[in-house]
Amino acid sequence: MTLTKDRTLADKVRADFPILHQEVNGKPLVYLDNAATSQKPLAVLNAIRDYYEQYNSNVHRGVHTLSAKATDAYEGARDKVAAFVNAASRQEIIYTRNASEAINLVAYSWGLSNLQRGDEIILSVMEHHSNLIPWQLTAQKTGAVLKFVELTPDGVFDLEQFKSLISDKTKLVSTVHVSNTLGCINPVEEIIEIAHQYGAKVLIDACQSAPHMVLDVQAMDCDWLVASGHKMCAPTGIGFLYGKLDLLRSMPPFLGGGEMIADVFLDHATYADLPHKFEAGTPSIGEAIALGAAVDYLSGIGMHNIHTYEAELTAYLFQQLQQIPEIKTYGPQPTSTGEGRAALAAFTAGDVHPHDLSTILDQAGIAIRAGHHCTQPLHRYLKVQSTARASLYFYNTREEIDLFIASLKEAVEFFGSIFG
Amino acid sequence: MTLTKDRTLADKVRADFPILHQEVNGKPLVYLDNAATSQKPLAVLNAIRDYYEQYNSNVHRGVHTLSAKATDAYEGARDKVAAFVNAASRQEIIYTRNASEAINLVAYSWGLSNLQRGDEIILSVMEHHSNLIPWQLTAQKTGAVLKFVELTPDGVFDLEQFKSLISDKTKLVSTVHVSNTLGCINPVEEIIEIAHQYGAKVLIDACQSAPHMVLDVQAMDCDWLVASGHKMCAPTGIGFLYGKLDLLRSMPPFLGGGEMIADVFLDHATYADLPHKFEAGTPSIGEAIALGAAVDYLSGIGMHNIHTYEAELTAYLFQQLQQIPEIKTYGPQPTSTGEGRAALAAFTAGDVHPHDLSTILDQAGIAIRAGHHCTQPLHRYLKVQSTARASLYFYNTREEIDLFIASLKEAVEFFGSIFG
Repeated sequence: MTLTKDRTLADKVRADFPILHQEVNGKPLVYLDNAATSQKPLAVLNAIRDYYEQYNSNVHRGVHTLSAKATDAYEGARDKVAAFVNAASRQEIIYTRNASEAINLVAYSWGLSNLQRGDEIILSVMEHHSNLIPWQLTAQKTGAVLKFVELTPDGVFDLEQFKSLISDKTKLVSTVHVSNTLGCINPVEEIIEIAHQYGAKVLIDACQSAPHMVLDVQAMDCDWLVASGHKMCAPTGIGFLYGKLDLLRSMPPFLGGGEMIADVFLDHATYADLPHKFEAGTPSIGEAIALGAAVDYLSGIGMHNIHTYEAELTAYLFQQLQQIPEIKTYGPQPTSTGEGRAALAAFTAGDVHPHDLSTILDQAGIAIRAGHHCTQPLHRYLKVQSTARASLYFYNTREEIDLFIASLKEAVEFFGSIFG
Repeated sequence: MTLTKDRTLADKVRADFPILHQEVNGKPLVYLDNAATSQKPLAVLNAIRDYYEQYNSNVHRGVHTLSAKATDAYEGARDKVAAFVNAASRQEIIYTRNASEAINLVAYSWGLSNLQRGDEIILSVMEHHSNLIPWQLTAQKTGAVLKFVELTPDGVFDLEQFKSLISDKTKLVSTVHVSNTLGCINPVEEIIEIAHQYGAKVLIDACQSAPHMVLDVQAMDCDWLVASGHKMCAPTGIGFLYGKLDLLRSMPPFLGGGEMIADVFLDHATYADLPHKFEAGTPSIGEAIALGAAVDYLSGIGMHNIHTYEAELTAYLFQQLQQIPEIKTYGPQPTSTGEGRAALAAFTAGDVHPHDLSTILDQAGIAIRAGHHCTQPLHRYLKVQSTARASLYFYNTREEIDLFIASLKEAVEFFGSIFG
């Protein structure tokens, strides 16, 4: 790094993230667990505080000033999320606690009322448990059958196999956009186009893409898309479901309660129009407003800029990992410019237990994850019990990658001297 | 008020609530919409900020320092909630988004797997929509039948009618502890004892009791109890379900995803032990931690002290309301010491539309609610379209009640001069 070098995106934004400026175990924190959850910028923290200090009130139900302000901010955040994914209508955005709840909403509401014995659901072997368990439960209840797309030898979604699995029996294809373990970017546009030729609906799990790249649900033509706020600079407790308007309209209610009703009688009720039909009870008001602030923050930086910078980091990360012979990474290799995969690396180091790697790195202030990353079936498919994973976001730097690699080398050498 | 008077509870705590110290429409804010949502003390706001500024990380899945800290705080908050309601085990506390989700969890998990055609569910006509719609949906799916306890002439839960409704067909009694509209405190111990004699389970909606009085789920002997964090000084996005351990163990999963699993295969899975079996996906981590801070704050004041002070306010509120002949209140009158009902008053003023009252009072900085308060069937039962509602919390003062009453008198006189 020279003094004349341009400031990177991370250089510009790191001051926005208070949590990054601390020591862990006596060393500067290097947070490389962003695929599990991202950190939050001041703009988001201030939005939360401002809400509770200035206008906290329940929404929709009140005519007083605070309630009107809270309602405006809560619904205004929905506009921001709709714009962020280029939804055709704000009514297509349903707030949920997280992406898991969004998938369960579709599974319970659409799944139980549309799937029958013998109908087929196509998933992939790389799905997060959140896009697997809801469909297992739905299949058990309806008699629908689960089919799984496997990986090509390169470790990506096998589109040819998908074409061989899909048929008129296929009612749903539900797949991850970017794998949280492999880091592969699935060809969702092609998947969706093929699925629609067979009349199947498609749900896209965008948890690992929404924080990192431009999303356009209209161009993608997905039927549903889900994402979690906490992975994209928003607080915990908020996520969203996008669904095509007519499709959401056709779906029966999921959770019952206040907010989602029109007229209630003792023995029956009519339901509110979208989006409120699917938002029962007092919603995550402060969290939704903060999601709006997060979307503003990300859009202010520009998702293209985030993607470009992360690609540079990805290229550098994989170059450095390749310098350690004991390290095996999973999923596709990036191009020389870091394209073709996400800014994360799941890896193993011979017989060293990933938890031990993570523990050793933590002593150096470096936070990486170890385990199955909620993709146990994928790990079985890969014939590995668990992996370590370093996952980046736009506030990470090359210098942090250097610290990570240096500690990883030390750890591998240390364990090599024990086991070797 | 004399200079030698003791400081009230409100005098002691108001500095803890930043939002209260503002003007609305040029007048000091008088926030009397606490049954819709409470305000948040600095201790809670700081807990949220500290989490995001110091140790935000996903829970349970990581071995690095931040993840361990977040997990400790998240699970520590569960211990606090368990102690707050005197649960026998921390595993009996399930975090949910709000009370509505908690009731839906029971309806989907226990209801759909335990109720059959002809089984009976007893509710009351005063239930919040959140304790009505989930059972309507469950009844539609299972063929179970809903029965409703009405009100005595005094406007409270008709225990004698309840005794005449219950039978061996009754599988569930689900009722509110404190009505958000009538303010009556239902005899839940007697209801539960009677229900258990018939082998029926009992769910208690404690949204309006948990913030205001001591709760003891073991003494009460309820099978489930639900509450919302945002009504008890915690942020939005968090609530909880209490359930007896064996009962929760016997219930199938509700939402599927990460966190709630033990071993996952492509076509099936085994599930985590309680409480995680019912917490799919990344939970509301920051919100749960803040709920723990709210419980600490309330316990620090003492729920007995809160109840006693609110009773004083209740007596004063109803004395003052009785000075306005046009005002009709609903539910039971308090005793001279303010006991026997909650610190809220739903009321009408002749033909004046409650929304107009609320709008006029808002001009004086006074936030009250107007509408059906998510109890449309109760309003139909009372033969009134909507009511205005002033609802208090322990930070409210007699002086605020005086301001409310003065503005209410003015409003009633104003509309009287128009309509009279």
